[in-house]
Order: sequence, then C-alpha cells, then structure tokens
Amino acid sequence: MNSVVPVKNKPNGIVAAVDIGGSNLRVALADVEGTILGRWNTSTKATSSPEMVVAQIEQGINCLLAQSSGAHPSLLAVAAGAPGVTDPRTGVVLATSYLRGWKNVPLRQLLESTFGVPAAVENDVRMAALGEHWMGAARGVDDFVFLAIGTGIAAGAFANGRLIHGANSTAGEVGYMFIPLTTQKPAGLGEPGALESVLGGEGIRRQWSNARGHDAKAESLTATEIFAQAANGDRAAKTVLDHSAQLLAYAVYNISLVLNSALFVLGGGIGVSIPLCEATSRVLEQYTVPSRPQLVISSLGTDAQLMGAVRLAATTAERFIGSRVRSL
Amino acid sequence: MNSVVPVKNKPNGIVAAVDIGGSNLRVALADVEGTILGRWNTSTKATSSPEMVVAQIEQGINCLLAQSSGAHPSLLAVAAGAPGVTDPRTGVVLATSYLRGWKNVPLRQLLESTFGVPAAVENDVRMAALGEHWMGAARGVDDFVFLAIGTGIAAGAFANGRLIHGANSTAGEVGYMFIPLTTQKPAGLGEPGALESVLGGEGIRRQWSNARGHDAKAESLTATEIFAQAANGDRAAKTVLDHSAQLLAYAVYNISLVLNSALFVLGGGIGVSIPLCEATSRVLEQYTVPSRPQLVISSLGTDAQLMGAVRLAATTAERFIGSRVRSL
Repeated sequence: MNSVVPVKNKPNGIVAAVDIGGSNLRVALADVEGTILGRWNTSTKATSSPEMVVAQIEQGINCLLAQSSGAHPSLLAVAAGAPGVTDPRTGVVLATSYLRGWKNVPLRQLLESTFGVPAAVENDVRMAALGEHWMGAARGVDDFVFLAIGTGIAAGAFANGRLIHGANSTAGEVGYMFIPLTTQKPAGLGEPGALESVLGGEGIRRQWSNARGHDAKAESLTATEIFAQAANGDRAAKTVLDHSAQLLAYAVYNISLVLNSALFVLGGGIGVSIPLCEATSRVLEQYTVPSRPQLVISSLGTDAQLMGAVRLAATTAERFIGSRVRSL
Repeated sequence: MNSVVPVKNKPNGIVAAVDIGGSNLRVALADVEGTILGRWNTSTKATSSPEMVVAQIEQGINCLLAQSSGAHPSLLAVAAGAPGVTDPRTGVVLATSYLRGWKNVPLRQLLESTFGVPAAVENDVRMAALGEHWMGAARGVDDFVFLAIGTGIAAGAFANGRLIHGANSTAGEVGYMFIPLTTQKPAGLGEPGALESVLGGEGIRRQWSNARGHDAKAESLTATEIFAQAANGDRAAKTVLDHSAQLLAYAVYNISLVLNSALFVLGGGIGVSIPLCEATSRVLEQYTVPSRPQLVISSLGTDAQLMGAVRLAATTAERFIGSRVRSL
C-alpha cells in the first residue's frame, strides 16, 4: 500500500500530515493540492517516547489509508510538525520541553523507515507559518510572521518567500524577548522567557489575579475569556487586555523592525482572541515609523500546522520525484 | 571608454563601487574578485541634489578610469550604497534624512544612463553586510547580522544566505527598538528611535553628560573616547560603558531571537569600539537560552560598504552577462 509513486512530473497520490502536540497527535491525509481526505487524532499523554509516537502515527495513517475511497491510494510522503527545536535539514528533533523532553530524535529517519516514503520534519510554529503562507491569511505574502501565543510564544517568519531557521534552528523564539514592562532577568534553561512570562497563558492569568485581587472565581477564567469580558466592559479585564495589547504591540513592532514584515498572522489559543488583536492594532496605530505592522488572526486556526504539513509533504514528494527524474 | 563588456562567462573587466554618505562620497574601481584598483573621494556637503551627486560620481569614476593602468579598461557595472530607505528591486532611493532629504530618487536609472552599464543600488548598511559576508568577518556565514552603531543604529541581516529587505525595504531599522531602559514613546517622523536615542552618538554623549555633571571638558569626548576612558578605569565612563553594553546586549539578543543569527558583526563609528564589544559580550554570557549570540567587530571597517558595492556590482555584471548569453 505504501508504494513509491511512479515517476511523473506532477505527483499523483496522497500525502500524510502529522501534528505532534504536547498532549494530542493529529494526522490527516490530503492530496497535493491541499484537499483534506481524512483526519485522525489521539492523545500523546501516555505515549511520550519517539517509538511510541511513531507507532501512533503509523496507526493513524494506516487507518486513514484503509478508509480512503481510492482502491490503492499511493502515499507519496509524510511530514510531521513537532513542538520544539527541530532541524529540518537533518530531520532531527533537537529538543522539546513537551513529550517528556525529546533530545536528538531522528524523527525523519524513523518516519521514512516506517512508511518507506520520503519524510520531512519541522517545528510546529514554522509548520503553521507554512500553512498560512500556502492556504491561509498570508497567502502569497513573501515577508510575514506567524506569531503563536498560547502557553508559550514563538514565531515562524518568512523572508524572501522562505522560512527562516537560523544557525541553530532556533529562529523565532521570541518568547524570550525583553521589552519595556517585562523582567530584565535572563531566563534559565527550561524557564519561560521574559515576554511569555507576562503574555503567555500563565502570565495573563497572573495579570488577571493581580487586577482582581483574591477572587476565587476569577482564577478559573482563560486568557481568551478574560479578553472577552474586557470587550463586555469589565474594568479589571480591560486593564489586563490593555496591558497585554501594549506588550504584544512592543513585540510585534520590535520583530517588524528586524524583518519589515508586511503582515503578522496571530495564532495559538491566546493569539486568536479578536479583542486582543483589535486592542493591539489600536496601540500599533501610534507606531508609524518606519512602517506600521498589520495584524490579522490566523484564517486556518488549529488547522494551520496540519496544512503546513500537507504543504511540506507535497513539496517533499515533488523534490523526491524531481531527483528521481534527474537521475534517470 | 564605458563600453559594454564582450559576452563571456567570466566577467573580464572592472566595476565601480560608490558609497554615498551624508557628508562624503567615496568611489572605488575594483576587479570582480574584489581587488581595489583605485580610490577617489569628495565631500557631498555642498552637493545634495541627485543630479549633482551623480555628476560627482561620474567625475570620480572617470578620473579613476583615466588613471587605470589597463589601456582600455572595460567598466562592467556600477553599484552605489545610499544612506536611507532604498529599494534594490526598483533601484530607487525612497527616502533619506541625509542629502537634504532625497525622496523617490531613481538612482539606478540615473547611473545607468550616465555610464551606459548596468547599475544597482542598496541601502548603505545592507551594503556593508554584503561586504562583510563576501570578504569580512562574516565570510561564508549565511545567517548573520551587521549592526551599524553611529549617529543612528541600523542592521543589515542575512538569512538563508540572502539579505533581508522586507515588504517596504525597511528591514533592519532596529534603532527604533523598544527594550527595557529606553523610552516607551513612539518616534515621530524624522525623530530618532527609542534605542538610538540612548545608544547612538547623541545618546551616549547625553549619558556621559549625566554621569559627569556639568563638566565642560567632558562634553567634547566622542563615544569611543568615553569607552576608551572606561577601559582606563574612569568611573563615570565605566557607568556609561556598562549601561551602553546592557542596552546593546538587549538589542542583539532580541534580534537574535527573531533570526537565530550565528554572528553579529559590529560596525559604525561607535560599533567598532573594542571596550563596547567586550563589555557587551560579557553581558551576553548570561543569555544562553535558546542560544547565545556571538559578537565580533567588523574586519573591513569603513571599507565594508565599498566592498559590498564591489560585490553587488560584480554580481550585477554577471547577471547582465548571463541574461545576454541566455538571450543569444
């Protein structure tokens, strides 16, 4: 079933997209144009070792292939996004604080030996940027930043139409950024960065707790619920929203000074909050020199990573076929 | 004399490199391997209009061509760096606060019609980055940042082996960056940015003035002289150096979070101060997560822009010859 595609210029077959999260694993089959043909997901909470996660991926892909309507669908390639420092050149997940701390996991090799097709791996936030560039809010925009704000904060940046990885594959770790109103203390290994410790999920809950005092009910709200309350006129919630918008504006502006990105696409559990996007855009109206960054919310939402993985798998299949054609 | 080169795969001839500064104009002739064959310079203080500056460039290049030892040296291409927002795709200097404020000057077209050879233009800081990548401290490093610190502060960044220009050609305007210890007030048009108003030449003189009180003699020192005094044990100067190093460390670290640059090459009148580089490197030793940026001082010094212009002219000549070969 996992046969190698016959040599053609246009790949004809399907690809598998994988999103490995800290607690969930999602798999999709798609054609190379990006049409999702099937989805499968499971929990990774009990299965943190690379071999166990790859076995889950195998289970998911095989399940979807079996359900696929085509008689013998050809799997062309697999691409997987992982939450951590990932080197797409070597296909190795160098480090992640999720999945009980993978270190130097040769994920691409594991996937290639499991499925017998070319594979590719990428950091999850850059994978989402790939998805937004291909099918989402940044379609056709060659200089843009996907900014994921959730428990942590990280960016996937395109410059000159290509993802930036940097020297050690850690480009985009902007959760460590120092801006006015953050701590000035350098982060130690495994500690949250200056920006994410105030603008990540925990940081916003801490802001809320400070704004409300010791109100037990307040503690149970999520960041997006707090921002929604601000939009409904709650004064303490508005304090948190305004402060968060100022922090986010500093971060977006600082990144835009480096890259002059045309667009910032906000994603992640907190990043997709409409009140946060609107409040931050209002702050950014003051930042006109040298050019004002534009914010939009991810149009793919939680599918951004999966769509990026479809794209990466499709280009991996094309490259593999191209290299076979050249070697004939 | 300014004849178009005969069609060959390897350009055989010379290129002209131009560095248009706010107060000085420098011209060099070089071969395409980067050997400087002659230099010429003049003041731009009395000649700010684009036509007058191009006439000066013509005078300089013609003077150098006449002096050239070859009987009939072929000029292949011209490249010019300009201090401001420059779009290399269109060859237009969009805006500069020097030269009495050029706006939308079609510099490439002016140079091409003057010399009858292909021309290219680039922002001066990015031109210096090109030079350092080709022949200087960042030779062969595909992810690095050239950071110019003088009156203002700006960066020329390479990612994936290519210069980053951004959506409006303003990538690298990091003098506007907001970090801890800077103002939180957005800059208006023509005003210095938050970072450069404390770490640029004026900002450091202001720090010095505050550290020394109303000592008239103190006022006359330049930033590099202040840093040199700090290295000699002057307490007030050390306060200025330590503060400047902390500011620069924040800026370098924040940029490195976005790009994960392997290397920062410091240039500009203040950036080449050895005490500043050493003090900033010591501060950066605390910033180990996700990876510590490395600082070095420009190895080309004030020649970085000129060497970048030689490189840009050489690649412009190669591209032009390549396109002629393809069209034959």
